[in-house]
Amino acid sequence: VAKRPRKSQYPLINFDEAVRTVMEHSKCLPVETIPIEDSLGRILSEDITAKVSIPPFRASIKDGYAVLSSDGPGPRRVVSSSTAGQSEPAPVRSGSVVRITTGAMVPTGADAVVQVEDTELLAATEEGAEELEVKILTSAKAGQDIRPAGSDVMKGDTILKKGTRLGPSEIGLLASVGVTQINVYRVPTVAVLSTGNELSDPHGTLREGHIFDSNRIMLMMALKEHRIPFVDMGIAIDNTDDLHKKLSDALSKADVIVTSGGVSMGEKDLLKYCLTVQLKAKLHFGRVLLKPGKPTTFATIPSSNTEKLVFALPGNPVSSMVCFNLFVLPALRKLMGDPSPSPTKIKAKLTADIRLDSRPEFQRVQLVWGDSQIPQAFTTGKQISCRLLSMCQANALVQLPPRSEEVSILRTDDVVDAILIGRL
Amino acid sequence: VAKRPRKSQYPLINFDEAVRTVMEHSKCLPVETIPIEDSLGRILSEDITAKVSIPPFRASIKDGYAVLSSDGPGPRRVVSSSTAGQSEPAPVRSGSVVRITTGAMVPTGADAVVQVEDTELLAATEEGAEELEVKILTSAKAGQDIRPAGSDVMKGDTILKKGTRLGPSEIGLLASVGVTQINVYRVPTVAVLSTGNELSDPHGTLREGHIFDSNRIMLMMALKEHRIPFVDMGIAIDNTDDLHKKLSDALSKADVIVTSGGVSMGEKDLLKYCLTVQLKAKLHFGRVLLKPGKPTTFATIPSSNTEKLVFALPGNPVSSMVCFNLFVLPALRKLMGDPSPSPTKIKAKLTADIRLDSRPEFQRVQLVWGDSQIPQAFTTGKQISCRLLSMCQANALVQLPPRSEEVSILRTDDVVDAILIGRL
Ligand SMILES: [Mg+2]
Ligand SMILES: [Mg+2]
Repeated sequence: VAKRPRKSQYPLINFDEAVRTVMEHSKCLPVETIPIEDSLGRILSEDITAKVSIPPFRASIKDGYAVLSSDGPGPRRVVSSSTAGQSEPAPVRSGSVVRITTGAMVPTGADAVVQVEDTELLAATEEGAEELEVKILTSAKAGQDIRPAGSDVMKGDTILKKGTRLGPSEIGLLASVGVTQINVYRVPTVAVLSTGNELSDPHGTLREGHIFDSNRIMLMMALKEHRIPFVDMGIAIDNTDDLHKKLSDALSKADVIVTSGGVSMGEKDLLKYCLTVQLKAKLHFGRVLLKPGKPTTFATIPSSNTEKLVFALPGNPVSSMVCFNLFVLPALRKLMGDPSPSPTKIKAKLTADIRLDSRPEFQRVQLVWGDSQIPQAFTTGKQISCRLLSMCQANALVQLPPRSEEVSILRTDDVVDAILIGRL
Repeated sequence: VAKRPRKSQYPLINFDEAVRTVMEHSKCLPVETIPIEDSLGRILSEDITAKVSIPPFRASIKDGYAVLSSDGPGPRRVVSSSTAGQSEPAPVRSGSVVRITTGAMVPTGADAVVQVEDTELLAATEEGAEELEVKILTSAKAGQDIRPAGSDVMKGDTILKKGTRLGPSEIGLLASVGVTQINVYRVPTVAVLSTGNELSDPHGTLREGHIFDSNRIMLMMALKEHRIPFVDMGIAIDNTDDLHKKLSDALSKADVIVTSGGVSMGEKDLLKYCLTVQLKAKLHFGRVLLKPGKPTTFATIPSSNTEKLVFALPGNPVSSMVCFNLFVLPALRKLMGDPSPSPTKIKAKLTADIRLDSRPEFQRVQLVWGDSQIPQAFTTGKQISCRLLSMCQANALVQLPPRSEEVSILRTDDVVDAILIGRL
């Protein structure tokens, strides 16, 4: 302990460089074929072409009558009907019409549909079961209320591009053109490990000198929120054997390891040692000029055909959650093929003065629109990095520049960048 | 068929009234107790108080030395150490210090911590294993780099209020204060049914006159996206027996039924009949002055101790998805206890002129911020309600007023309301 360095050996790199380094090492995972039922949130690794046209046939847009537009208004014989789902209906000739429902095939001969609201009943069978004659009240234009075959999508058209993120509508679109198996990028599995002699599992009792481990469940829930599978690796104590064992186990189970704690300058901060010496990891950075999250550490470990990523986040709950959003989530999105993996940045207006720190800082805020064009950013309270309450109800992080000679304070109504991290 | 009404019998109610009606009938579900591991996205039905203080003891913020601030700078004997997780360390007396790590208990007697960066080694044991003497280089203020017990959270404090939505940070906070079982509102189960003789399952072949059913998987995926459990009720054909059977089955399995199709004025539009006559449902509205989504139908069916809700959405895929977002999702959120169940509305700037419809309209757009303070709304293309491509990549719906004498067109750069429906 005595001979430990009294300054960190790790250069303090700037935030943009740290993000760039992480993203350079985050490579798209291989492709897999999955059913569309399992594809929510996944990214297409191929262009998708329609197997069928939409609609596959000339389809009526209205409930009404299929007519010849050239016949104009007047009384017409109702010769048959075409309902949705019925195959080829009888053709229509001049002077007659076919009753038709929304989505039904328009009969050969007809070139327009007149909605039922624009008609009158003239004659029916005695029981009223069938219409014999109706009066068409309006002049139909050719093509009126008919969707031509392929007017929405033509068979063979590319309907979704490689790199598309699949939400409910995209999956619905796939179903609509008969595509039920698709190629997407594999999603990473993430192992989550907490480290520290002081951690008690929240399901047990709190021992003296201990705190409850909150980072592990928080990080796992953040992964769950983004539909990324995870493995719970538990808590490692501050001892190189236990760390080595649990990290090796994590490497065998996951593509990415996310730890918290053990990365500062204390005598029990053994994670960097364990990664570099025991696991032969390449440590890309061990400190970032950032508040919170200065000890954030990123390493890669060569594996059979790819590199495994290790994010060793700080132990303070806020730091670990902020750095999850700033570093881990963009990396995971890139691994799963998302062409826009970076967090979404919008503009927000401060609702209080903020004294700038010497480091670039990300403060937790709640964005509220009200009736204004630009959202107001309300602070979630005291921003010390151990205080998890400041993450609660936060839906964004405002990005504050470091203090400079010219600017040491931002004022109410100043406009800043805000990174979205939660439901608006 | 002949005697069918040629105008809809259902009054065309306005959008706000329709939403109000739905929300009035959406009552919070009962409370259940669940483990925090299963609580992502759920709403607390109780205030939560901390079972322990955070930190539970005076904790060091830094790796360094616990000192008496009154001693000032100078050489000090290192009498012992306090590492995180260790129980009560030996006390500190004037002239001596205790080596300490981040998160460790501050020994009795010490009233400040000096970080290791502000110290020098003076003497160590021969092997360098232990420090004997260090030089404190700075003057410590009383309380420096110490978190008093309970400074973040005091035992017994209310940390989360009833009505809080549980995200990763809130769940982390629960763990941090030792709360692992919580009371939340039950989440509704939703039965999803498609209706129509024209529907083929996308996993099978497309029969003549048919289209593939896209609404069912789309609605199920929308529910999945919002972590709401669902039951797949398949496809009902346009026949009162089949509809009655499948709706009865759905009622026995779910709190809410969402159907699509069968609500227009065609001879095969049997859903309203089936609901009101066969199932004795109270039909609250059967048409809404809205584009898309005019035939949207809402009914309730009395059940043992509550009402079951039925949303009969239009068959056009875009209409069903838009109405899911406008009516169904807010209702589901209210059922699960969300105190802010309405969709989030922000402001956006049009990027093209839009001709207004006679009905209030919700057009699908993609919001893009770029460097502007207010997002630009880019249309997702031709807005016909059958064209699911227009839902794809849409993250918002712009709310357009109906055409009036004064205003028949909105112009590029006009600012409108935008309802958020997807990832920004
Ligand atoms: Mg530690
Ligand atoms: Mg139908």
